Amino acid sequence: MKKIKPRTLSGFMELLPPEQVCFDTIIRRLRKSFSAYGYTSIDTPLMEAAEVLLAKGGGETEKQIYQLSKGDADLAIRYELTASLAKYVTLYYNELTFPFRRFEIGKVYRGERAQRGRFREFYQADIDIIGDGSLDVLNEAEIPSVIYSVFKALGLDSFVIHMNNRKVLSGLFEILGIGENSGDVMRIIDKLGKIGKEKVSEILTGDLGLSHSQANDVIEFITYQGDPFEILEKHKGQNDLYDTGVSELLALKTHLAAFGVPDTHFVIDLSIARGLDYYTGTVYETYLSDYPEVGAVCSGGRYDNLAECFTDRKMPGVGISIGLSRLFYILQEQGLLNDKFYSAPADVLIIPMTDELTHAIRLATSMREAGLRVQIYSENKKFKVKVAYADKLKIPYVVFLGEDEISKGLITVKDMTSGEQTTASASILTKGIKDKIETKDKALFS
Amino acid sequence: MKKIKPRTLSGFMELLPPEQVCFDTIIRRLRKSFSAYGYTSIDTPLMEAAEVLLAKGGGETEKQIYQLSKGDADLAIRYELTASLAKYVTLYYNELTFPFRRFEIGKVYRGERAQRGRFREFYQADIDIIGDGSLDVLNEAEIPSVIYSVFKALGLDSFVIHMNNRKVLSGLFEILGIGENSGDVMRIIDKLGKIGKEKVSEILTGDLGLSHSQANDVIEFITYQGDPFEILEKHKGQNDLYDTGVSELLALKTHLAAFGVPDTHFVIDLSIARGLDYYTGTVYETYLSDYPEVGAVCSGGRYDNLAECFTDRKMPGVGISIGLSRLFYILQEQGLLNDKFYSAPADVLIIPMTDELTHAIRLATSMREAGLRVQIYSENKKFKVKVAYADKLKIPYVVFLGEDEISKGLITVKDMTSGEQTTASASILTKGIKDKIETKDKALFS
Repeated sequence: MKKIKPRTLSGFMELLPPEQVCFDTIIRRLRKSFSAYGYTSIDTPLMEAAEVLLAKGGGETEKQIYQLSKGDADLAIRYELTASLAKYVTLYYNELTFPFRRFEIGKVYRGERAQRGRFREFYQADIDIIGDGSLDVLNEAEIPSVIYSVFKALGLDSFVIHMNNRKVLSGLFEILGIGENSGDVMRIIDKLGKIGKEKVSEILTGDLGLSHSQANDVIEFITYQGDPFEILEKHKGQNDLYDTGVSELLALKTHLAAFGVPDTHFVIDLSIARGLDYYTGTVYETYLSDYPEVGAVCSGGRYDNLAECFTDRKMPGVGISIGLSRLFYILQEQGLLNDKFYSAPADVLIIPMTDELTHAIRLATSMREAGLRVQIYSENKKFKVKVAYADKLKIPYVVFLGEDEISKGLITVKDMTSGEQTTASASILTKGIKDKIETKDKALFS
Repeated sequence: MKKIKPRTLSGFMELLPPEQVCFDTIIRRLRKSFSAYGYTSIDTPLMEAAEVLLAKGGGETEKQIYQLSKGDADLAIRYELTASLAKYVTLYYNELTFPFRRFEIGKVYRGERAQRGRFREFYQADIDIIGDGSLDVLNEAEIPSVIYSVFKALGLDSFVIHMNNRKVLSGLFEILGIGENSGDVMRIIDKLGKIGKEKVSEILTGDLGLSHSQANDVIEFITYQGDPFEILEKHKGQNDLYDTGVSELLALKTHLAAFGVPDTHFVIDLSIARGLDYYTGTVYETYLSDYPEVGAVCSGGRYDNLAECFTDRKMPGVGISIGLSRLFYILQEQGLLNDKFYSAPADVLIIPMTDELTHAIRLATSMREAGLRVQIYSENKKFKVKVAYADKLKIPYVVFLGEDEISKGLITVKDMTSGEQTTASASILTKGIKDKIETKDKALFS
């Protein structure tokens, strides 16, 4: 039979079991953090009618979208989760209760050239709060508070949530007389971190035709080094939108303290613009302080009209997206995935020492009923191979069950960490193992 | 702006939030049951090189597979999880420890005509144990034991796991002199439940050219009404393969008792053949006793060569697959999804009665720290609308926080089930709510 070379497509993350355990732990913690704030999960299809998925226009991304036909249907595979959300809230509007807090953790696809740490298939974890007609600004403070608790739950401490308000920038542009160029200027400012302020200034005065004085005012504003409220104060009273933005930023700062986000973990950063036109209020970018070169690991903001391609109904919202596969890749690269993320596939391996297996199976069953994760090793291999199996998988306890133990109604347990061996009744040792596992879990996962 | 009609493709299951909670509960319980037996999770890409996914040949299914091209790559979207597993164990052979117990819960795609309860995008939950060179038969008893514990964990009791052994059927066919037709005969027998024994007999003697006596012997065997070991005994001593199969069935029966599977929940059913050629030992089909018309909800078996399209290395295995979306659809249709599967998106809704929100936010933060899931309702709506929000989402506790409470350092909690209202300190009421939620969870999820 001709063999086919087994391979996984480049840019498609596929993990070995121990890494997968860590990834699953991350997802579990994300779900828990989102749930603590009352977000509910949804699970939208990966494939949609191309028309639905591309309704908003994919922009730069559009040429990366996987598309296919089946019968007479033009289908597309989702490249982010927002279009699916817009469809969902419009389609099920009558069944949903607003404000609608949802999270979705799912795979998305982009047919871009695969690079180190960039993926073609990757997980995004999105949270959004969608209002019906209106949405209170308090929600704009809730989102970074969720982010803070997510990153803390992942055992990270060196991260800072950078925040700005698009009203402030749009208002400033009106004050400076460049309001008509607002979208383009936002997109250039958004590149400040990547291309530096000389280059930004060059494009503003070149391509966008700003005067040197206008460009300087923009640059001075977005790169201001002191307390941002000093420079925010400078332009106050000249533009209503600007003034609203400033008071929203002030409220955000106050609320975040009440939400328990320490001021070491967020900063008002007037250079944060976000490239997309549809943001209208607070915008967010989260950076890992020790790895600034990886860029933002989580971004989002407030928008006023989620589903305008589908409905006239106004549905404002605020949300963020975490590029989960990329975040995982970084944690892995930096050696940040430790024992707190990993657990062995089983707590106990039972090695029967007799041909008759009934006692071993019964023991496994009773240990499982007690809440332990148990494997039986029944392959016909040398004793050494059997113990090596537990060792390789880091299974912490091995039970030996021989004639002698069975006749006496006892079992022998080896603690694989200490090497210590104990013989006693199954019920006593089951309880002992369970207590140790729970104590360890509590210490690790608290 | 021209509007696009929001829609979800037919055959793509998309759930409303309360249903999604139930679906998520099911997945969580599956994961827990699989973990109790030491299975580890893997997460393979949905898209693979077409050559890899179709290596084994999709048979009937092949024309239903979604395929696409991107650049010069021919890609296919997975239609089940076995090809991905075969690739995975071959590709990562050196990093894996065998026997390798893995589960994968993921979406698969089939571009078939959508029908009621049939899906184009659906979840499969697969477990398999893969050996390296050999795999002990005990594993063939473990699989139905996992199935039993999964279905029990889903709150189901009226189900029966039907089991047979392909060695018995293959051996019988050799005894009857129809060994060369074995694969075809299996495929026809597999249809017994659907087409009835007259039709099976007709095809056996017609298309397959069996004599009437041969066909009668086959039919008599597979529809035997008494203790199957009676008829199994009848043919013993004539064929080694047959005899091995019979002793494996006997061992299976004994082991299942030790695994804690009561004999009300499994049956040796000599008509179970499974259509696919690659099964070589025990085969399984699970039926819901009260809904026989829906057919098998979970099937699988033992195979001797998982990855022969990729490698010369022999990797025998045993596994089963649950059609999860279909099972969910049945549970939903039959009204079997009850309070045990559902929980509200939050335990507590805080309704601030003042413009100043700091106290409400602080209270939410401290309640979350205590382990409660908390939402703040901050929209500017009438009081009635705010309470109705909690009502619609079935949030069990609502906190009112007005000037009066704030000045006295107290909060008022309304129990939405009893209607009872209590005013006391936040710490006392937080503890009270937490205790009640935990007691309820314990009662529900034990």
